[in-house]
Amino acid sequence: MPSADAYRLTATEAAAAIGSGRLSPVDLVESCLDRALARDPDVRAWQYLAADEALMEARLRQAGTAAGPFHAIPFGAKDIIDVAGLPTGYGTPIYHGHVSHRTAACVALLQEAGAVCLGKTVTTELAHFHPGKTRNPHRMSHTPGGSSSGSAAAVASGAVPIALGTQTTGSVLRPAAYCGVFGFKPSFGDVSRSGVMECVSAFDTVGWFTRCVADLERVRRGLLRLPVAAPDTVDVTALRCGVLRGPDWERADATTQDRVLGAAAALASAGATVEDVDPPTGFAELPVHHRTIAGFEFARAITWERTQRASVISPKLLEGRCGDGLRISYEDYAAAHEALLSARAAHADLIAGYDVLITPVAPGPAPEGLAATGDPVFNTAWTALHVPAVSIPAFQDAAGMPIGLQLVGAFRRDGRLLAAAQCIARELGVERVDPVG
Amino acid sequence: MPSADAYRLTATEAAAAIGSGRLSPVDLVESCLDRALARDPDVRAWQYLAADEALMEARLRQAGTAAGPFHAIPFGAKDIIDVAGLPTGYGTPIYHGHVSHRTAACVALLQEAGAVCLGKTVTTELAHFHPGKTRNPHRMSHTPGGSSSGSAAAVASGAVPIALGTQTTGSVLRPAAYCGVFGFKPSFGDVSRSGVMECVSAFDTVGWFTRCVADLERVRRGLLRLPVAAPDTVDVTALRCGVLRGPDWERADATTQDRVLGAAAALASAGATVEDVDPPTGFAELPVHHRTIAGFEFARAITWERTQRASVISPKLLEGRCGDGLRISYEDYAAAHEALLSARAAHADLIAGYDVLITPVAPGPAPEGLAATGDPVFNTAWTALHVPAVSIPAFQDAAGMPIGLQLVGAFRRDGRLLAAAQCIARELGVERVDPVG
Repeated sequence: MPSADAYRLTATEAAAAIGSGRLSPVDLVESCLDRALARDPDVRAWQYLAADEALMEARLRQAGTAAGPFHAIPFGAKDIIDVAGLPTGYGTPIYHGHVSHRTAACVALLQEAGAVCLGKTVTTELAHFHPGKTRNPHRMSHTPGGSSSGSAAAVASGAVPIALGTQTTGSVLRPAAYCGVFGFKPSFGDVSRSGVMECVSAFDTVGWFTRCVADLERVRRGLLRLPVAAPDTVDVTALRCGVLRGPDWERADATTQDRVLGAAAALASAGATVEDVDPPTGFAELPVHHRTIAGFEFARAITWERTQRASVISPKLLEGRCGDGLRISYEDYAAAHEALLSARAAHADLIAGYDVLITPVAPGPAPEGLAATGDPVFNTAWTALHVPAVSIPAFQDAAGMPIGLQLVGAFRRDGRLLAAAQCIARELGVERVDPVG
Repeated sequence: MPSADAYRLTATEAAAAIGSGRLSPVDLVESCLDRALARDPDVRAWQYLAADEALMEARLRQAGTAAGPFHAIPFGAKDIIDVAGLPTGYGTPIYHGHVSHRTAACVALLQEAGAVCLGKTVTTELAHFHPGKTRNPHRMSHTPGGSSSGSAAAVASGAVPIALGTQTTGSVLRPAAYCGVFGFKPSFGDVSRSGVMECVSAFDTVGWFTRCVADLERVRRGLLRLPVAAPDTVDVTALRCGVLRGPDWERADATTQDRVLGAAAALASAGATVEDVDPPTGFAELPVHHRTIAGFEFARAITWERTQRASVISPKLLEGRCGDGLRISYEDYAAAHEALLSARAAHADLIAGYDVLITPVAPGPAPEGLAATGDPVFNTAWTALHVPAVSIPAFQDAAGMPIGLQLVGAFRRDGRLLAAAQCIARELGVERVDPVG
């Protein structure tokens, strides 16, 4: 592969190429920067492309001797995540011109392992509903999803093999599905949120996007500062899958339903144990509890902006989310938390019998239009449960738009979930995807 | 009372005086500023006293018509909490000259209710062990405790009736006890940490210091943005108290043991139900699990500082806390969390039979010397359990140094705990304290 095409590599592939001397740090970073510059007039994934800073980092990596597991691997960071010396805009004019004075833990951990930050990716307004400028790399008239819109689109379009996002409702898994890349939301609490804007402390989780399933585990280990290793190998005949349609199954379109059930059938044919499962007790009420807690916490977390900068906050966020949140009583807030504790225990009981639950990740492919970012209906409950979840870009609709498959695991058994995800991706023939466009 | 002495008022008293027109916002803020300036050469509670900003705020309050429940009430904020336009130093030279661009939720919520921020109070290094410059207002050769050293000392010395701190181990309750003021750590998760430095996401909790027990509930309601009201009234004859000596009882000095048991006897004499209780299952191991989780998380949260500014981090923090934290395996980290879940359920079962648990808050009065901030041995377990805890300045030793009494409640029943605390404080004759010195 000519080094100009190095942007096409996954992180695992790029690390191998650099490790063997076939690729230089500067060539990799330059290839990604060139790709970002070439695609961004259309895709608009980047809020701030730190070209000079990234090239300087690449040269330092090239000149240095130490080589961590992410040596010179480029990545992007959602623009609610601080990077020292770079602007952080949080998707709102409130912070126009603000430059971060320190670097968030998730970024610094990848940098400590050798990675190079290519810049800040577009977020929706304060990581909520109001879209940013990003378009879906598969079709420019369609949403990339949100709120981690730019991170998903940057990885899908080949600007970076890795991008960091955050999920409070469905802000990693939905854009991953819409943009046709791999997405992962780890167990709540595992990855430090230091330097990441607080929306809803009870749910906010750093997640990430990649173009191969192996990279999901690589990034997880990097962010936990564990030795990087390939995911455990799981044989498909040992795999126990629960197919969970759940209370919102009818909100998935016919193609999505068909693809999810088709994948389950394919896994069964390959020798996996595949069973239909009912959702855990209390599952249908989880979105209500999520909304109660998220509204209560966000309206308070954002007090300074709400009181000092109200005129530049979108009405839906100010009057909807915040207004609703301020009307929630403490008793209702506490009761919602209490209900989640029970639901998490019920999920733990259910998942004990399976390696993964298989379920839709979105109602369908990315909707047309850029005025909204799609529906998190298939994400909210899992986020509320704090459990790890993967989106695999397993399918397409008739028009070629990506459709994802969601795999859900047991709390703090993320490694086991990703091992199962690798097995399933292999069986479905989607262990990696190429940059689109 | 002459308005120059207004600094002696609690927040509840000051609000009443302002509400009735006996005291003006400017006079109150000026009185507190004068007191802060007079005492700070000795006490050294303030990292940054925002005199001009506070006076301007007071004049705006005085000119305005709206009057929230904290109308013109001065408060201080620990210097790991952002206030827009003021420097935030985090107790380390790393951030010398850094000015915050937005205001933390906890500060903004008090401001929204009318309060006036008098400035930033001294913290230990990155809210850990290495002391700041603050001295104990009761005796300058003694530690004020840490890490919320300045907040405790500012309230004790009369510079402000309210100060915000944070507790990850024992950083609110211990300094409250050492400085002879009321301290409260609410249930984990209730108060937004937006704009507060992340140390250990699993435990970090915003707490506060006051000079009367009623103010604890007033601030709690302000920070949850609930209507401010007096605590519920509890009659002592209806009060159910468990006296918990626990596995570390012998680490409390004889005076502390005597005072705690004496308080329990006094409550029993007054008609309360008072019983000795054994700690919940797993209690003795909680400090080990706390250390595992805190080390794991802090070493990662602080990655940028650890990798980019190591030369100005104290060895105990860098090689101790961080070094230890980086050696903890993910499996041990996850197991510690799992153990805490069980212990929290055990605590819930135990506390269901009581309004409060009564237990020491520190091994004794503030130790002599300024090179260390004392021992959190009586705080760690409760922090790990996520439950609310109060320190009441109920006692003194023979030399007149304050000794606190700790009251522990049920998770997310903070209002009930504070109502019980008010009853107990009244019975012990310490519903309020005067500024010292």
